[in-house]
Amino acid sequence: MNKHLDALIEFLRIPSVSANPDHKEDVARAARWLEAKLSALGFQVEVVATPGHPIVYAERIVDPQAPTVLIYGHYDVQPPDPLELWHTPPFEPTLREGKLYARGASDDKGQIYAHIAAVEDLGPDLGVNVKFVIEGEEEISSAHLEPFVRSNAERLGADVLLISDGAMYAPGVPSLEYGLRGLVYMEVRLEGANRDLHSGVYGGAAPNPIHAAAWMIAKLKGEDGRILVPGFYDAVRELTEEERASLASLNFDAAAFASSIGAEALPGEPGWGALERTWVRPTLDVNGIWGGYQGEGSKTVIPAKAGFKFSMRLVPDQDPEAIQKAVTEYLQRIKPEGYRMEILYHGTGKPVVTELDSPYMRKAAQALEAAWGRKPVFTRSGGSIPIVANFQELLGIPVVLLGMGLNDDNLHSPNEKFDLVNYEKGIEASRNFLRLMSAP
Amino acid sequence: MNKHLDALIEFLRIPSVSANPDHKEDVARAARWLEAKLSALGFQVEVVATPGHPIVYAERIVDPQAPTVLIYGHYDVQPPDPLELWHTPPFEPTLREGKLYARGASDDKGQIYAHIAAVEDLGPDLGVNVKFVIEGEEEISSAHLEPFVRSNAERLGADVLLISDGAMYAPGVPSLEYGLRGLVYMEVRLEGANRDLHSGVYGGAAPNPIHAAAWMIAKLKGEDGRILVPGFYDAVRELTEEERASLASLNFDAAAFASSIGAEALPGEPGWGALERTWVRPTLDVNGIWGGYQGEGSKTVIPAKAGFKFSMRLVPDQDPEAIQKAVTEYLQRIKPEGYRMEILYHGTGKPVVTELDSPYMRKAAQALEAAWGRKPVFTRSGGSIPIVANFQELLGIPVVLLGMGLNDDNLHSPNEKFDLVNYEKGIEASRNFLRLMSAP
Repeated sequence: MNKHLDALIEFLRIPSVSANPDHKEDVARAARWLEAKLSALGFQVEVVATPGHPIVYAERIVDPQAPTVLIYGHYDVQPPDPLELWHTPPFEPTLREGKLYARGASDDKGQIYAHIAAVEDLGPDLGVNVKFVIEGEEEISSAHLEPFVRSNAERLGADVLLISDGAMYAPGVPSLEYGLRGLVYMEVRLEGANRDLHSGVYGGAAPNPIHAAAWMIAKLKGEDGRILVPGFYDAVRELTEEERASLASLNFDAAAFASSIGAEALPGEPGWGALERTWVRPTLDVNGIWGGYQGEGSKTVIPAKAGFKFSMRLVPDQDPEAIQKAVTEYLQRIKPEGYRMEILYHGTGKPVVTELDSPYMRKAAQALEAAWGRKPVFTRSGGSIPIVANFQELLGIPVVLLGMGLNDDNLHSPNEKFDLVNYEKGIEASRNFLRLMSAP
Repeated sequence: MNKHLDALIEFLRIPSVSANPDHKEDVARAARWLEAKLSALGFQVEVVATPGHPIVYAERIVDPQAPTVLIYGHYDVQPPDPLELWHTPPFEPTLREGKLYARGASDDKGQIYAHIAAVEDLGPDLGVNVKFVIEGEEEISSAHLEPFVRSNAERLGADVLLISDGAMYAPGVPSLEYGLRGLVYMEVRLEGANRDLHSGVYGGAAPNPIHAAAWMIAKLKGEDGRILVPGFYDAVRELTEEERASLASLNFDAAAFASSIGAEALPGEPGWGALERTWVRPTLDVNGIWGGYQGEGSKTVIPAKAGFKFSMRLVPDQDPEAIQKAVTEYLQRIKPEGYRMEILYHGTGKPVVTELDSPYMRKAAQALEAAWGRKPVFTRSGGSIPIVANFQELLGIPVVLLGMGLNDDNLHSPNEKFDLVNYEKGIEASRNFLRLMSAP
């Protein structure tokens, strides 16, 4: 175990922030680190260059007739900002009370490395072929993975795709996800005058793009939590009775959930509980906004420019392309007069629901039960792994989503962490699954 | 003239940005620079320490029986951001095509220095006592000037207060302002969860303070430009027939105004033209907004915090304290449930209308006519010099507002400038005014 912890710490020290061009070389270094690690385990490794960050593809074929497991993960991480809120630096992994703190610890370096560790533990005489696809652009919408999968569909051929990039339902409760939300990520940039203006001299006549942004955001999602883009909810699939029962059986505790994030309320779409709103209902959130003076004190300025980034989480059967088009048209319609608007597109991903009763799901459930001593629960996730839909479409194989993280892992926020027990059990579950796959 | 230009350039090199604590020593340096300059001209100078930036007070009493002119100005400047839009560095004054480019060139170092230059030109045998109050906190709401004026009312005694911190109606058109808008500047900080959250895992249930900010801003000012705070317009004084006639006589060209700022439209309060909306109607503008991810690309985050700064320009007889109270109550009412709110207060200033037909206004008109070869127009300004109301109240003397700048001087935005012809005519008009004041 110490060996696997040391390796993960080394991996986490590389600040492979894919969103920030200043970290381009660090991202490349993380790819080379994986290449060295997997080569040492007897894999054929290729670091595939893309117009963005490289994809690490590795395979170890022990017997062309043996079953093959394809494992997907990503080695890029979210930006660590705001830095001042980290208790220890994001790229100096630190152990505290059984948890490893570092950007990427849970999302997704810890989870992908758990499978590499399992492969290492089992040795080469496994009787299962293993393939890894580990990308460097998951946090920036995986733009170059889909073309790679498309043009390498045969090479990636496998019996099952195993992905660990999610969370367990609760601490100590092994979980298998069977649904993921899709994603549309867009950005609106607004311009009024051609320069910043004195708010006294011009106030009352000059266009103010901050107000335009606020009016538009208020028209994207109402204060009651309902998304106001026409047709947005049209394609949302109704829940089956089974799904309703499965959701109810989890006895979700909304008050504990609110308290776990320090929130006084859990606002959202009327008529649905917080669990439904994060798992089975679509949503829209502004992820960033800017304009004018942000420093200390006051500045009497009407800014020339303002903008905001926002994303929608989609559920079956919403089509990301159709939603993106509808939102674009709606933005053009609600943009107030007197403002120049630019719309940027930061990627889309399809929502996914996987088969609940495939033989692979059963093996995964068995592997988890053996590791944790209790049966797993079946969950959906509010998050998106857009590439899952692509894999399903292009490779036509079943997907097993075996999340090892926890919801309080602080993904995408300061003090991200990974519980060591989850790392250990994750490695054990992965070993169990690979062994079960090799059984006749 | 060269001597006065060199001196102003030296003054402008000092980055006396009052809003930024990093520039505290530079602000102090600008005060000492004025102290040295005025001492050399035979003034008794005191650099008065305050809890913020110092006030420079200077007086030269040639004869206790002679008329006294009190001149007010400020030596602090706006922050220069965004730096990348300056064609030449903000604190390296540069001459191009008859204009001097630098932060503070027009607002207010050029205008206050024009009076110092006039005093220097006229020499000590003027027959008029001159007093200067030059503060270092005008751009951050003049918090410490009012107590200074209050406790030094006798020492500041004068026949007239002369202020140059505004703009002429148009190039070549000398102007006397008789009205200024008041100001209330506030800030709202909102918090939802206690940390940034993954927008997939939590989207649909987590509070998002950016949306809360947008909803609140949309409720402060509607898309039709009307301010929605209850009672906001109640105390607004109707225009007199004379004022309407005077406004109409200026033949304001809204299309040229829009084109001068590169705006496609001049949105604002319904029922009023752009000139009225900037001069005689109150307004509200968000001056800055922030929250979430502002970098390149995308980050799927729901931020814990967001906020915005906003200011209102007031007209007679709106009372800043009453407006601030009404807005505070309104904010508490419109804040959506589930968010913690903090309200910050960045200062207030009363609106002012000065006497149009005082003997001092007549002398000022004469002084301007002699310098420019044409009669001045009487204007109002959308801007605020909050301290004018305090001076009026505490000293009980008439105020003359003799603006030397132009509306395209880029106050508070990149590439601020001061036309040399305005500097030269400003010095000449100041000399004329002081001479007229000394005449029996």
